[in-house]
Amino acid sequence: MTNPTAAILIIGDEILSGRTRDANMHFLAGELARIGVDLREARFVPDRHEAIISAVNDLRSGHDHLFTSGGIGPTHDDITADAIAAALGVRLAIREDARALLAAHYDRTGLDFNAARQRMARIPEGATLIDNPISTAPGFSLENVHVMAGVPNIFQAMVASLLPRLAGGRPLLSQTLRIDQGEGVIAGPLGDLAREFADLGIGSYPFIQNGAHGSNIVIRGTDAARLDAAMARLAAIFPKAGT
Amino acid sequence: MTNPTAAILIIGDEILSGRTRDANMHFLAGELARIGVDLREARFVPDRHEAIISAVNDLRSGHDHLFTSGGIGPTHDDITADAIAAALGVRLAIREDARALLAAHYDRTGLDFNAARQRMARIPEGATLIDNPISTAPGFSLENVHVMAGVPNIFQAMVASLLPRLAGGRPLLSQTLRIDQGEGVIAGPLGDLAREFADLGIGSYPFIQNGAHGSNIVIRGTDAARLDAAMARLAAIFPKAGT
Repeated sequence: MTNPTAAILIIGDEILSGRTRDANMHFLAGELARIGVDLREARFVPDRHEAIISAVNDLRSGHDHLFTSGGIGPTHDDITADAIAAALGVRLAIREDARALLAAHYDRTGLDFNAARQRMARIPEGATLIDNPISTAPGFSLENVHVMAGVPNIFQAMVASLLPRLAGGRPLLSQTLRIDQGEGVIAGPLGDLAREFADLGIGSYPFIQNGAHGSNIVIRGTDAARLDAAMARLAAIFPKAGT
Repeated sequence: MTNPTAAILIIGDEILSGRTRDANMHFLAGELARIGVDLREARFVPDRHEAIISAVNDLRSGHDHLFTSGGIGPTHDDITADAIAAALGVRLAIREDARALLAAHYDRTGLDFNAARQRMARIPEGATLIDNPISTAPGFSLENVHVMAGVPNIFQAMVASLLPRLAGGRPLLSQTLRIDQGEGVIAGPLGDLAREFADLGIGSYPFIQNGAHGSNIVIRGTDAARLDAAMARLAAIFPKAGT
Protein backbone atom coordinates (compact mmCIF):
# COMPACT_ATOMS: atom_id res chain seq x y z
CA MET A 1 0.00 0.00 0.00
CA THR A 2 1.35 3.41 -0.87
CA ASN A 3 0.36 6.52 1.04
CA PRO A 4 -1.83 9.22 -0.53
CA THR A 5 0.15 12.19 -1.87
CA ALA A 6 -0.48 15.89 -1.36
CA ALA A 7 0.59 19.37 -2.35
CA ILE A 8 0.18 22.71 -0.60
CA LEU A 9 -0.53 26.01 -2.31
CA ILE A 10 0.07 29.14 -0.22
CA ILE A 11 -1.64 32.19 -1.74
CA GLY A 12 -0.66 35.77 -0.94
CA ASP A 13 1.56 38.71 -1.84
CA GLU A 14 2.70 39.14 1.75
CA ILE A 15 4.93 36.07 1.74
CA LEU A 16 6.58 36.61 -1.65
CA SER A 17 7.23 40.28 -0.91
CA GLY A 18 9.27 39.25 2.12
CA ARG A 19 6.94 40.97 4.59
CA THR A 20 5.66 37.83 6.31
CA ARG A 21 7.30 34.50 6.98
CA ASP A 22 4.92 31.65 6.24
CA ALA A 23 4.05 29.30 9.11
CA ASN A 24 1.30 27.22 7.52
CA MET A 25 3.42 25.00 5.27
CA HIS A 26 5.58 23.79 8.14
CA PHE A 27 2.54 23.16 10.34
CA LEU A 28 0.65 21.18 7.70
CA ALA A 29 3.78 19.22 6.69
CA GLY A 30 4.03 17.92 10.26
CA GLU A 31 0.32 17.05 10.45
CA LEU A 32 0.37 15.20 7.12
CA ALA A 33 3.44 13.17 8.13
CA ARG A 34 1.59 12.16 11.29
CA ILE A 35 -1.45 10.77 9.42
CA GLY A 36 0.49 9.17 6.56
CA VAL A 37 -0.13 11.58 3.68
CA ASP A 38 3.07 12.23 1.68
CA LEU A 39 3.60 15.93 1.03
CA ARG A 40 5.32 16.06 -2.36
CA GLU A 41 5.31 19.72 -3.29
CA ALA A 42 4.58 23.19 -1.98
CA ARG A 43 4.02 26.35 -4.00
CA PHE A 44 3.64 30.01 -3.16
CA VAL A 45 1.85 32.31 -5.59
CA PRO A 46 0.69 35.94 -5.33
CA ASP A 47 -2.92 37.18 -5.20
CA ARG A 48 -3.35 36.96 -8.97
CA HIS A 49 -6.30 35.21 -10.52
CA GLU A 50 -4.43 33.49 -13.37
CA ALA A 51 -1.48 32.43 -11.19
CA ILE A 52 -3.83 30.76 -8.69
CA ILE A 53 -5.88 28.98 -11.37
CA SER A 54 -2.80 27.65 -13.11
CA ALA A 55 -1.21 26.36 -9.88
CA VAL A 56 -4.48 24.80 -8.67
CA ASN A 57 -5.01 22.87 -11.88
CA ASP A 58 -1.41 21.75 -12.04
CA LEU A 59 -1.28 20.56 -8.43
CA ARG A 60 -4.73 18.99 -8.09
CA SER A 61 -4.14 16.78 -11.10
CA GLY A 62 -0.76 15.55 -9.87
CA HIS A 63 -1.66 14.64 -6.29
CA ASP A 64 -4.39 12.96 -4.27
CA HIS A 65 -4.99 16.13 -2.26
CA LEU A 66 -4.32 19.83 -2.67
CA PHE A 67 -4.48 22.07 0.39
CA THR A 68 -4.60 25.84 -0.03
CA SER A 69 -4.01 28.62 2.47
CA GLY A 70 -5.00 32.28 2.16
CA GLY A 71 -7.32 34.61 0.30
CA ILE A 72 -10.77 33.72 1.66
CA GLY A 73 -11.47 36.84 3.76
CA PRO A 74 -13.77 39.79 2.97
CA THR A 75 -11.38 42.22 1.26
CA HIS A 76 -10.67 42.98 -2.40
CA ASP A 77 -7.45 40.90 -2.37
CA ASP A 78 -9.35 37.78 -1.24
CA ILE A 79 -9.84 36.10 -4.61
CA THR A 80 -9.19 32.44 -3.80
CA ALA A 81 -12.83 31.26 -3.91
CA ASP A 82 -13.30 32.92 -7.32
CA ALA A 83 -10.11 31.33 -8.64
CA ILE A 84 -10.98 27.86 -7.31
CA ALA A 85 -14.46 28.02 -8.86
CA ALA A 86 -12.92 29.12 -12.17
CA ALA A 87 -10.23 26.40 -12.02
CA LEU A 88 -12.79 23.66 -11.41
CA GLY A 89 -15.38 25.15 -13.76
CA VAL A 90 -18.23 25.51 -11.26
CA ARG A 91 -20.47 28.40 -10.18
CA LEU A 92 -19.63 30.55 -7.16
CA ALA A 93 -22.59 31.97 -5.23
CA ILE A 94 -23.77 32.83 -1.73
CA ARG A 95 -24.66 29.56 -0.07
CA GLU A 96 -27.49 29.56 2.42
CA ASP A 97 -25.93 27.42 5.17
CA ALA A 98 -22.70 29.44 5.10
CA ARG A 99 -24.69 32.69 5.09
CA ALA A 100 -26.75 31.53 8.06
CA LEU A 101 -23.61 30.61 10.04
CA LEU A 102 -22.14 34.04 9.41
CA ALA A 103 -25.42 35.88 10.09
CA ALA A 104 -25.71 34.16 13.48
CA HIS A 105 -22.07 34.99 14.26
CA TYR A 106 -22.46 38.69 13.47
CA ASP A 107 -25.81 38.81 15.27
CA ARG A 108 -24.12 37.32 18.36
CA THR A 109 -21.20 39.75 18.21
CA GLY A 110 -23.39 42.79 17.42
CA LEU A 111 -21.52 43.58 14.20
CA ASP A 112 -23.07 44.58 10.90
CA PHE A 113 -23.37 41.65 8.45
CA ASN A 114 -22.49 43.91 5.53
CA ALA A 115 -21.79 43.13 1.87
CA ALA A 116 -18.06 42.52 2.42
CA ARG A 117 -18.76 39.96 5.15
CA GLN A 118 -21.46 38.32 3.03
CA ARG A 119 -18.76 37.67 0.40
CA MET A 120 -17.36 35.06 2.79
CA ALA A 121 -20.54 32.99 2.27
CA ARG A 122 -19.71 32.62 -1.44
CA ILE A 123 -18.89 28.93 -1.87
CA PRO A 124 -18.25 27.04 -5.13
CA GLU A 125 -21.13 24.76 -6.11
CA GLY A 126 -20.80 21.23 -4.81
CA ALA A 127 -18.29 22.01 -2.05
CA THR A 128 -18.32 20.70 1.52
CA LEU A 129 -17.75 23.33 4.23
CA ILE A 130 -14.71 23.19 6.54
CA ASP A 131 -15.57 24.31 10.06
CA ASN A 132 -13.90 27.47 11.41
CA PRO A 133 -14.29 27.51 15.20
CA ILE A 134 -12.25 30.74 15.51
CA SER A 135 -14.01 33.28 13.31
CA THR A 136 -16.87 31.27 11.72
CA ALA A 137 -16.23 32.08 8.01
CA PRO A 138 -15.84 28.56 6.62
CA GLY A 139 -13.27 26.96 4.36
CA PHE A 140 -14.39 24.34 1.86
CA SER A 141 -13.41 21.12 0.11
CA LEU A 142 -14.27 20.69 -3.56
CA GLU A 143 -13.23 17.41 -5.20
CA ASN A 144 -9.66 16.93 -3.92
CA VAL A 145 -9.00 20.63 -3.18
CA HIS A 146 -9.21 21.85 0.41
CA VAL A 147 -9.40 25.63 0.77
CA MET A 148 -8.47 27.21 4.09
CA ALA A 149 -7.69 30.60 5.63
CA GLY A 150 -4.20 32.10 5.78
CA VAL A 151 -4.24 33.46 9.34
CA PRO A 152 -2.21 30.78 11.15
CA ASN A 153 -4.49 30.05 14.11
CA ILE A 154 -7.53 29.83 11.81
CA PHE A 155 -5.59 27.67 9.33
CA GLN A 156 -4.61 25.31 12.14
CA ALA A 157 -8.18 25.07 13.41
CA MET A 158 -9.45 24.30 9.90
CA VAL A 159 -6.79 21.61 9.44
CA ALA A 160 -7.97 20.05 12.70
CA SER A 161 -11.57 20.12 11.35
CA LEU A 162 -10.57 18.65 7.99
CA LEU A 163 -7.98 15.93 8.55
CA PRO A 164 -10.17 13.41 10.39
CA ARG A 165 -12.32 13.02 7.26
CA LEU A 166 -9.38 12.28 4.94
CA ALA A 167 -8.11 8.74 4.48
CA GLY A 168 -4.50 8.64 5.59
CA GLY A 169 -1.91 5.95 5.22
CA ARG A 170 0.98 4.74 7.30
CA PRO A 171 2.49 7.57 9.35
CA LEU A 172 5.90 8.75 8.24
CA LEU A 173 8.35 7.69 10.94
CA SER A 174 11.81 9.12 11.37
CA GLN A 175 14.89 8.48 13.45
CA THR A 176 17.89 10.75 13.71
CA LEU A 177 21.52 10.02 14.52
CA ARG A 178 23.87 12.90 15.18
CA ILE A 179 27.39 12.25 13.90
CA ASP A 180 30.14 14.63 14.95
CA GLN A 181 31.98 14.40 11.65
CA GLY A 182 31.60 16.47 8.50
CA GLU A 183 29.54 15.22 5.57
CA GLY A 184 32.68 14.81 3.48
CA VAL A 185 33.95 12.09 5.85
CA ILE A 186 30.74 10.10 6.11
CA ALA A 187 29.39 10.50 2.57
CA GLY A 188 30.93 7.27 1.21
CA PRO A 189 29.60 4.74 3.77
CA LEU A 190 26.33 6.69 4.03
CA GLY A 191 25.78 6.36 0.29
CA ASP A 192 26.32 2.60 0.56
CA LEU A 193 23.74 2.43 3.34
CA ALA A 194 21.24 4.46 1.26
CA ARG A 195 21.64 2.01 -1.64
CA GLU A 196 21.13 -0.98 0.68
CA PHE A 197 17.99 0.56 2.25
CA ALA A 198 16.60 2.06 -0.94
CA ASP A 199 13.03 1.71 0.39
CA LEU A 200 13.82 4.32 3.09
CA GLY A 201 14.67 7.99 2.80
CA ILE A 202 18.11 8.70 4.23
CA GLY A 203 19.00 12.37 4.48
CA SER A 204 22.14 14.10 5.72
CA TYR A 205 21.82 17.57 7.26
CA PRO A 206 25.15 19.22 8.00
CA PHE A 207 25.76 21.75 10.77
CA ILE A 208 28.64 23.65 12.29
CA GLN A 209 28.74 23.82 16.09
CA ASN A 210 31.53 25.50 18.04
CA GLY A 211 33.55 25.55 14.84
CA ALA A 212 33.30 21.78 14.30
CA HIS A 213 31.42 20.10 11.44
CA GLY A 214 28.73 17.54 12.15
CA SER A 215 25.74 15.96 10.41
CA ASN A 216 22.32 14.84 11.50
CA ILE A 217 21.40 11.69 9.63
CA VAL A 218 17.63 11.30 9.35
CA ILE A 219 16.12 8.00 8.25
CA ARG A 220 12.47 8.17 7.18
CA GLY A 221 9.97 5.52 6.24
CA THR A 222 6.70 3.85 7.18
CA ASP A 223 8.06 0.44 8.29
CA ALA A 224 9.30 0.64 11.88
CA ALA A 225 11.29 -2.62 11.69
CA ARG A 226 13.16 -1.47 8.57
CA LEU A 227 13.92 1.85 10.26
CA ASP A 228 15.31 0.04 13.27
CA ALA A 229 17.45 -2.18 11.05
CA ALA A 230 18.86 0.79 9.11
CA MET A 231 19.50 2.75 12.28
CA ALA A 232 21.32 -0.23 13.86
CA ARG A 233 23.53 -0.52 10.78
CA LEU A 234 24.19 3.22 10.80
CA ALA A 235 25.19 3.15 14.46
CA ALA A 236 27.52 0.21 13.77
CA ILE A 237 29.21 2.11 10.92
CA PHE A 238 29.70 5.21 13.07
CA PRO A 239 30.21 3.80 16.57
CA LYS A 240 31.30 7.10 18.10
CA ALA A 241 28.13 8.94 17.03
CA GLY A 242 26.04 10.84 19.57
CA THR A 243 22.26 10.75 19.59
CA MET B 1 10.31 50.02 -17.01
CA THR B 2 9.17 46.84 -15.36
CA ASN B 3 11.28 45.00 -12.81
CA PRO B 4 12.88 41.63 -13.58
CA THR B 5 10.91 38.67 -12.21
CA ALA B 6 12.16 35.70 -10.24
CA ALA B 7 11.20 32.35 -8.76
CA ILE B 8 12.77 30.33 -5.95
CA LEU B 9 13.07 26.55 -5.87
CA ILE B 10 13.84 25.00 -2.47
CA ILE B 11 15.08 21.42 -2.82
CA GLY B 12 15.01 18.89 0.00
CA ASP B 13 13.01 16.21 1.78
CA GLU B 14 13.63 17.79 5.18
CA ILE B 15 11.25 20.70 4.59
CA LEU B 16 8.37 18.73 3.05
CA SER B 17 8.58 16.05 5.75
CA GLY B 18 7.96 18.71 8.39
CA ARG B 19 11.32 18.18 10.07
CA THR B 20 12.85 21.56 9.20
CA ARG B 21 11.25 24.96 8.74
CA ASP B 22 12.69 26.73 5.72
CA ALA B 23 14.42 30.07 6.30
CA ASN B 24 15.90 30.70 2.86
CA MET B 25 12.77 31.73 0.99
CA HIS B 26 11.93 34.49 3.47
CA PHE B 27 15.52 35.74 3.47
CA LEU B 28 15.78 35.87 -0.33
CA ALA B 29 12.31 37.42 -0.70
CA GLY B 30 13.48 40.37 1.41
CA GLU B 31 16.77 40.74 -0.50
CA LEU B 32 15.03 40.66 -3.89
CA ALA B 33 12.48 43.28 -2.83
CA ARG B 34 15.39 45.50 -1.78
CA ILE B 35 17.11 45.37 -5.21
CA GLY B 36 13.94 45.55 -7.30
CA VAL B 37 13.51 41.96 -8.49
CA ASP B 38 9.87 40.80 -8.28
CA LEU B 39 9.57 37.38 -6.66
CA ARG B 40 6.56 35.78 -8.37
CA GLU B 41 6.64 32.17 -7.22
CA ALA B 42 8.31 29.78 -4.81
CA ARG B 43 8.31 26.00 -4.97
CA PHE B 44 9.48 23.24 -2.66
CA VAL B 45 10.29 19.81 -4.10
CA PRO B 46 11.90 16.69 -2.59
CA ASP B 47 15.34 15.25 -3.44
CA ARG B 48 14.03 13.48 -6.55
CA HIS B 49 15.75 13.83 -9.89
CA GLU B 50 12.62 14.10 -12.05
CA ALA B 51 10.83 16.49 -9.67
CA ILE B 52 13.79 18.87 -9.67
CA ILE B 53 14.22 18.78 -13.46
CA SER B 54 10.54 19.43 -14.08
CA ALA B 55 10.38 22.35 -11.63
CA VAL B 56 13.63 23.88 -12.95
CA ASN B 57 12.45 23.85 -16.53
CA ASP B 58 9.02 25.18 -15.65
CA LEU B 59 10.36 28.04 -13.50
CA ARG B 60 13.38 29.12 -15.54
CA SER B 61 11.25 29.56 -18.65
CA GLY B 62 8.63 31.65 -16.87
CA HIS B 63 10.89 34.13 -15.05
CA ASP B 64 13.99 36.23 -15.61
CA HIS B 65 15.80 34.45 -12.76
CA LEU B 66 15.49 31.17 -10.91
CA PHE B 67 17.26 30.78 -7.57
CA THR B 68 17.67 27.33 -6.04
CA SER B 69 18.58 26.29 -2.51
CA GLY B 70 19.80 22.88 -1.35
CA GLY B 71 21.33 19.66 -2.57
CA ILE B 72 24.88 20.67 -3.53
CA GLY B 73 26.84 18.98 -0.72
CA PRO B 74 28.92 15.77 -0.81
CA THR B 75 26.34 13.13 0.20
CA HIS B 76 24.21 10.73 -1.84
CA ASP B 77 21.10 12.93 -1.46
CA ASP B 78 22.87 15.93 -3.01
CA ILE B 79 21.62 15.61 -6.58
CA THR B 80 20.93 19.21 -7.54
CA ALA B 81 23.96 19.71 -9.82
CA ASP B 82 23.10 16.51 -11.71
CA ALA B 83 19.48 17.62 -12.10
CA ILE B 84 20.39 21.14 -13.25
CA ALA B 85 22.82 19.78 -15.85
CA ALA B 86 20.14 17.38 -17.08
CA ALA B 87 17.48 20.11 -17.15
CA LEU B 88 19.67 22.43 -19.21
CA GLY B 89 21.15 19.65 -21.34
CA VAL B 90 24.81 20.23 -20.56
CA ARG B 91 27.65 18.02 -19.27
CA LEU B 92 28.52 17.80 -15.58
CA ALA B 93 32.17 17.19 -14.72
CA ILE B 94 34.87 18.07 -12.20
CA ARG B 95 35.98 21.60 -12.99
CA GLU B 96 39.60 22.49 -12.41
CA ASP B 97 39.14 25.90 -10.75
CA ALA B 98 36.49 24.56 -8.38
CA ARG B 99 38.66 21.51 -7.63
CA ALA B 100 41.66 23.76 -6.90
CA LEU B 101 39.62 25.92 -4.51
CA LEU B 102 38.47 22.86 -2.60
CA ALA B 103 41.92 21.21 -2.61
CA ALA B 104 43.45 24.35 -1.08
CA HIS B 105 40.67 24.49 1.52
CA TYR B 106 41.15 20.89 2.62
CA ASP B 107 44.93 21.26 2.55
CA ARG B 108 44.61 24.29 4.85
CA THR B 109 42.25 22.52 7.23
CA GLY B 110 44.24 19.26 7.20
CA LEU B 111 41.25 17.18 6.04
CA ASP B 112 41.30 14.47 3.41
CA PHE B 113 40.10 15.70 -0.02
CA ASN B 114 38.33 12.43 -0.66
CA ALA B 115 36.00 11.33 -3.46
CA ALA B 116 32.85 12.61 -1.73
CA ARG B 117 34.35 16.08 -1.29
CA GLN B 118 35.60 16.08 -4.89
CA ARG B 119 31.96 15.65 -5.98
CA MET B 120 31.44 19.26 -4.91
CA ALA B 121 33.77 20.37 -7.73
CA ARG B 122 31.35 18.92 -10.31
CA ILE B 123 29.96 21.97 -12.13
CA PRO B 124 27.74 22.01 -15.22
CA GLU B 125 29.56 23.10 -18.36
CA GLY B 126 29.39 26.82 -19.05
CA ALA B 127 28.46 27.85 -15.49
CA THR B 128 29.90 30.77 -13.50
CA LEU B 129 30.91 29.95 -9.91
CA ILE B 130 29.22 31.62 -6.93
CA ASP B 131 31.66 32.32 -4.13
CA ASN B 132 31.18 30.52 -0.80
CA PRO B 133 33.17 32.33 1.88
CA ILE B 134 31.92 29.99 4.64
CA SER B 135 32.85 26.50 3.50
CA THR B 136 34.44 27.05 0.04
CA ALA B 137 32.37 24.57 -2.02
CA PRO B 138 30.93 26.93 -4.66
CA GLY B 139 27.45 27.48 -6.01
CA PHE B 140 27.02 28.32 -9.68
CA SER B 141 24.96 30.32 -12.17
CA LEU B 142 24.06 28.72 -15.51
CA GLU B 143 22.01 30.83 -17.92
CA ASN B 144 19.33 32.34 -15.65
CA VAL B 145 19.53 29.64 -12.95
CA HIS B 146 21.46 30.37 -9.75
CA VAL B 147 22.25 27.31 -7.66
CA MET B 148 23.08 27.73 -3.98
CA ALA B 149 23.49 25.71 -0.78
CA GLY B 150 20.64 24.96 1.61
CA VAL B 151 22.42 25.57 4.94
CA PRO B 152 21.06 29.04 5.82
CA ASN B 153 24.31 30.85 6.66
CA ILE B 154 25.97 29.51 3.50
CA PHE B 155 22.90 30.35 1.41
CA GLN B 156 22.94 33.90 2.75
CA ALA B 157 26.66 34.30 2.01
CA MET B 158 26.13 33.02 -1.55
CA VAL B 159 23.23 35.43 -2.08
CA ALA B 160 25.53 38.26 -0.96
CA SER B 161 28.13 37.06 -3.50
CA LEU B 162 25.60 36.76 -6.31
CA LEU B 163 23.19 39.69 -6.12
CA PRO B 164 25.64 42.49 -6.98
CA ARG B 165 26.11 40.99 -10.44
CA LEU B 166 22.39 40.82 -11.26
CA ALA B 167 20.61 43.77 -12.82
CA GLY B 168 17.88 44.88 -10.46
CA GLY B 169 15.07 47.33 -10.96
CA ARG B 170 13.25 49.76 -8.76
CA PRO B 171 13.17 48.57 -5.16
CA LEU B 172 9.79 47.42 -3.88
CA LEU B 173 8.65 50.00 -1.33
CA SER B 174 5.95 49.41 1.22
CA GLN B 175 4.03 51.39 3.79
CA THR B 176 1.77 49.96 6.45
CA LEU B 177 -1.21 51.44 8.28
CA ARG B 178 -2.63 49.61 11.24
CA ILE B 179 -6.41 49.97 11.51
CA ASP B 180 -8.09 48.80 14.68
CA GLN B 181 -11.20 47.57 12.91
CA GLY B 182 -12.00 44.19 11.44
CA GLU B 183 -11.62 43.51 7.74
CA GLY B 184 -15.36 43.23 7.34
CA VAL B 185 -15.78 46.90 8.30
CA ILE B 186 -13.06 48.32 6.09
CA ALA B 187 -13.39 46.05 3.06
CA GLY B 188 -15.74 48.31 1.10
CA PRO B 189 -13.75 51.59 1.14
CA LEU B 190 -10.49 49.63 0.89
CA GLY B 191 -11.67 47.96 -2.31
CA ASP B 192 -12.53 51.38 -3.77
CA LEU B 193 -9.02 52.59 -2.91
CA ALA B 194 -7.45 49.51 -4.53
CA ARG B 195 -9.38 50.17 -7.75
CA GLU B 196 -8.30 53.83 -7.75
CA PHE B 197 -4.62 52.92 -7.19
CA ALA B 198 -4.59 49.85 -9.41
CA ASP B 199 -0.87 50.37 -10.15
CA LEU B 200 -0.07 49.59 -6.48
CA GLY B 201 -0.49 46.43 -4.47
CA ILE B 202 -2.83 46.97 -1.54
CA GLY B 203 -3.06 44.07 0.87
CA SER B 204 -5.08 43.61 4.03
CA TYR B 205 -3.68 41.36 6.79
CA PRO B 206 -6.11 40.76 9.62
CA PHE B 207 -5.11 40.06 13.22
CA ILE B 208 -6.76 39.55 16.57
CA GLN B 209 -5.15 41.31 19.53
CA ASN B 210 -6.56 41.20 23.06
CA GLY B 211 -9.76 39.81 21.59
CA ALA B 212 -10.26 42.74 19.18
CA HIS B 213 -10.06 42.51 15.39
CA GLY B 214 -7.70 44.74 13.43
CA SER B 215 -5.99 44.83 10.04
CA ASN B 216 -2.62 45.91 8.79
CA ILE B 217 -3.04 47.54 5.41
CA VAL B 218 0.15 47.26 3.37
CA ILE B 219 0.60 49.35 0.22
CA ARG B 220 3.40 48.20 -2.08
CA GLY B 221 4.89 49.67 -5.23
CA THR B 222 7.99 51.16 -6.78
CA ASP B 223 6.85 54.81 -7.08
CA ALA B 224 7.33 56.61 -3.76
CA ALA B 225 5.06 59.53 -4.68
CA ARG B 226 2.18 57.21 -5.61
CA LEU B 227 2.65 55.32 -2.35
CA ASP B 228 2.51 58.57 -0.40
CA ALA B 229 -0.66 59.60 -2.24
CA ALA B 230 -2.38 56.28 -1.57
CA MET B 231 -1.30 56.27 2.06
CA ALA B 232 -2.62 59.84 2.54
CA ARG B 233 -5.96 58.81 1.07
CA LEU B 234 -6.07 55.72 3.26
CA ALA B 235 -5.35 57.76 6.39
CA ALA B 236 -8.11 60.22 5.41
CA ILE B 237 -10.61 57.37 4.97
CA PHE B 238 -9.69 55.87 8.35
CA PRO B 239 -8.79 58.90 10.49
CA LYS B 240 -8.67 56.98 13.75
CA ALA B 241 -6.08 54.47 12.49
CA GLY B 242 -2.82 53.92 14.39
CA THR B 243 0.51 53.50 12.67
